[in-house]
Amino acid sequence: MTVGPVEIGGVGFVVVAGPCAVESAGQTEEVAAAVAAAGAHLLRGGAFKPRTSPYAFQGLGEEAVAILGRSGGRHGLPVVAEVLDTAQLASMIDHVDILQVGARNMQNFPLLRALGKVRRPVLLKRGFAATVEEWLLAAEYLLDGGNSQVVLCERGIRTFETATRNTLDLASVALVKQRTHLPVLVDPSHATGLRELVIPMSLAAAVAGADGLLVEVHGAPEAALCDGRQALTPALFSDLMHRLPPVLAAIGRSLHPRTAAAPAVRAVSP
Amino acid sequence: MTVGPVEIGGVGFVVVAGPCAVESAGQTEEVAAAVAAAGAHLLRGGAFKPRTSPYAFQGLGEEAVAILGRSGGRHGLPVVAEVLDTAQLASMIDHVDILQVGARNMQNFPLLRALGKVRRPVLLKRGFAATVEEWLLAAEYLLDGGNSQVVLCERGIRTFETATRNTLDLASVALVKQRTHLPVLVDPSHATGLRELVIPMSLAAAVAGADGLLVEVHGAPEAALCDGRQALTPALFSDLMHRLPPVLAAIGRSLHPRTAAAPAVRAVSP
Amino acid sequence: MTVGPVEIGGVGFVVVAGPCAVESAGQTEEVAAAVAAAGAHLLRGGAFKPRTSPYAFQGLGEEAVAILGRSGGRHGLPVVAEVLDTAQLASMIDHVDILQVGARNMQNFPLLRALGKVRRPVLLKRGFAATVEEWLLAAEYLLDGGNSQVVLCERGIRTFETATRNTLDLASVALVKQRTHLPVLVDPSHATGLRELVIPMSLAAAVAGADGLLVEVHGAPEAALCDGRQALTPALFSDLMHRLPPVLAAIGRSLHPRTAAAPAVRAVSP
Amino acid sequence: MTVGPVEIGGVGFVVVAGPCAVESAGQTEEVAAAVAAAGAHLLRGGAFKPRTSPYAFQGLGEEAVAILGRSGGRHGLPVVAEVLDTAQLASMIDHVDILQVGARNMQNFPLLRALGKVRRPVLLKRGFAATVEEWLLAAEYLLDGGNSQVVLCERGIRTFETATRNTLDLASVALVKQRTHLPVLVDPSHATGLRELVIPMSLAAAVAGADGLLVEVHGAPEAALCDGRQALTPALFSDLMHRLPPVLAAIGRSLHPRTAAAPAVRAVSP
Repeated sequence: MTVGPVEIGGVGFVVVAGPCAVESAGQTEEVAAAVAAAGAHLLRGGAFKPRTSPYAFQGLGEEAVAILGRSGGRHGLPVVAEVLDTAQLASMIDHVDILQVGARNMQNFPLLRALGKVRRPVLLKRGFAATVEEWLLAAEYLLDGGNSQVVLCERGIRTFETATRNTLDLASVALVKQRTHLPVLVDPSHATGLRELVIPMSLAAAVAGADGLLVEVHGAPEAALCDGRQALTPALFSDLMHRLPPVLAAIGRSLHPRTAAAPAVRAVSP
Repeated sequence: MTVGPVEIGGVGFVVVAGPCAVESAGQTEEVAAAVAAAGAHLLRGGAFKPRTSPYAFQGLGEEAVAILGRSGGRHGLPVVAEVLDTAQLASMIDHVDILQVGARNMQNFPLLRALGKVRRPVLLKRGFAATVEEWLLAAEYLLDGGNSQVVLCERGIRTFETATRNTLDLASVALVKQRTHLPVLVDPSHATGLRELVIPMSLAAAVAGADGLLVEVHGAPEAALCDGRQALTPALFSDLMHRLPPVLAAIGRSLHPRTAAAPAVRAVSP
Repeated sequence: MTVGPVEIGGVGFVVVAGPCAVESAGQTEEVAAAVAAAGAHLLRGGAFKPRTSPYAFQGLGEEAVAILGRSGGRHGLPVVAEVLDTAQLASMIDHVDILQVGARNMQNFPLLRALGKVRRPVLLKRGFAATVEEWLLAAEYLLDGGNSQVVLCERGIRTFETATRNTLDLASVALVKQRTHLPVLVDPSHATGLRELVIPMSLAAAVAGADGLLVEVHGAPEAALCDGRQALTPALFSDLMHRLPPVLAAIGRSLHPRTAAAPAVRAVSP
Repeated sequence: MTVGPVEIGGVGFVVVAGPCAVESAGQTEEVAAAVAAAGAHLLRGGAFKPRTSPYAFQGLGEEAVAILGRSGGRHGLPVVAEVLDTAQLASMIDHVDILQVGARNMQNFPLLRALGKVRRPVLLKRGFAATVEEWLLAAEYLLDGGNSQVVLCERGIRTFETATRNTLDLASVALVKQRTHLPVLVDPSHATGLRELVIPMSLAAAVAGADGLLVEVHGAPEAALCDGRQALTPALFSDLMHRLPPVLAAIGRSLHPRTAAAPAVRAVSP
């Protein structure tokens, strides 16, 4: 499948990077510039944030969607943002290149049904307590609805272990690659919750067969409004982008070519 | 809190019973008559069913809501049905006495926000991978939105154990009763997935401090379109209703008085 | 099966109580006197303690076995203590009425093989990550070895939930009672890790079909060398013993009669 | 640390391979010859097998230890075998180069205490329900006892996922490498339970920071007496050994040099 100039699931390994949450135009632009310079292929950022507590920062909503789209456009990066509800879909569909379904919504079947009917790629995160079988059946809701542009994303499952935020299940990535034709990304940021584990787990994901990464980057993680403990700094992200090519080469893959022009996808979409 | 003639969270122990899914008017009426005769206080039934596979029976939708309401009215039982999405809310609000948020939607925050604004009680099931803290924070979305009519429902959590469908966490019931003022029901049907465990777990739930039960009953479980293995027959449900009073008496509680008249609640609601 | 004057698995509900660890003769005697006065049937106490850290209190070992035996004898209570290793067996067998296999050793097969050959009842705790099937197969090692005096004990399983120490799986108790003839006790102290949940979970265990309890009691829980947070005070234990009879009566059972004389079992054993 | 000519935890990546269980001299010799030819550094094989059911094959015991030692000696491979109980230690210590503590015994503290006193390296597998903290504290029992020759081994943890036998927790490997100086191996065979996942997870483990692998190989997996579904054939093992070097090179490591001579370690040991 392709998103503007980016093919996901081909030989080229794809890196989606950006802040957990869009906090401001300045913060987003700073991160977008940094990840574009380091070679990221798509820009991610949370607009509507699903937060455990109603008193936590809930995201900037539609304003964030606009900010994200502008920074993505400026740096030639198609954008990925999470949609939480069917009612948000109309306002997001024309401004987002890939619609993300988060872990908590993997079995939000009305949302999956609605996304099955749009002509926009969907990134389907594995629920943190979902089996591989349930994950693939959730994807089936999208495929059965007529949307074949589905990317899976492993982001760790909930277990008894508390040393990491979740338990990254890389065997599921290898398993899904053997059993389906769908591309699979890995989100090492949410999976581990610890910045210092993001690079080793990114490399391990590449070798396990992932088609790309979804990585959180923040200009000043300690001041982030959301999940700062797991965000890479721009310098660490750049380090990751330097370490990926030799590892990919060892298994016969390579980084996807850098995208030079602004994404045209949204101009032509439904 | 009260739903028509029924008080939930008082001294009286409340039993919600009915089929997993509304399959037809006849099946629903048969179950409603049986559970009313045995002393149930409310009627439950699935209209929109959240199913793991898109190819499984998805519920009769609005037709089911109407069927459920008619059978409830005929037998003087307020009705409980699950709402899956904010978009379904408008069509359900006038026909359902308690809106249920299912385990998969416990962290569907837009839905919780919407339910925080209605004047209708909400039954909030614990997510099957939610901690007690997350469950109470999900309830906080409802309370913070202005809806104080919240009933919690423990329905088992997902663990490594496969002998039962889920692992019923009765300690969480005792814990929540000590830490909040909210009423708590227990759903032994989904928690165990096995008919033969429903009665002992119902009695244990009562003694652990639950304010009531949510129990699945089907006239012919082996022919049920959904979860037949965990449904009580009418005869077993009647057996349960005979066993509850002495156990409740032992801890100073009793079954809620039977409701004699049709529920008036929907006539006066928002 | 019988242990001195106590029958486990009959109509009478049996309560085993005592400190997590034998810390001194005085502390043990104080607890033994209190639980005997309140109506306990057996005395438990840790001699060799399996501790996660090598730097934590490891138990008084053989001295503790002797202390426990003396206090038990003084109050007419047969004693239960955990054996960690085949090498400890010889020194414990003549001083302990029931040999406990702890959760960490449920699949210590050489130990199970050795215990299959002794003429002494064995209390087999469920491993904190063991399925019901694995638990019953562990019991099968004892039965297959020739020891039919096996009592099972559910003590909570490890899950993602952190509000309680473990997750008490009462459905497993009902399931095991339906599938085997073995008596089953419940340990609400380790299962919950919280004193305030011990009484409600004890009552729930009784109603779920358990044949008895294993409860930790300490004269001064805040000063306990081990697991004080989950220990009942003597006053709370007495409260529990007053609350059990009506709940048991509601399901057609009763507390086992109090044991008046010193246990004769050890005098006649192998 | 070194075992004969093999250094574990240095730059060289170490591969331990062999059958789940020693079934016969012929089967062991066939596997030993194959893995030696393919470049393995140590030979593993189960002598005393911890089996869930007492009716499953329990291993050949001391005979297996002798068989394993002879095949290892013939091919210049130091041998690794599991010890289940302190009582087995005396008969194994002179015939085994690395004593393995299996997942079920990670918290068998008397065994750890005994192994803390021997002059023989210990391979400590993570318990399938052990946190990283508990695993490191179990290692502390060995270190505190005076044995500094400790190798850790991640072999998957028990979670709700049933598509794989366990869930391989590679983040724990990266975490432990950052927090301790101990070498860490990964056992992709038990972790996944599926032959087709062993190679991708082996490569991922190498990139995640593991110091080596523990891999099951069987000449005829479909006829294996134990865990055949997860065993590599000799051909697949050879494939793995060809794929490792480029991946290791990408992260600045390499396979440990092949061991040419018979291990001298046992001749000089304690």
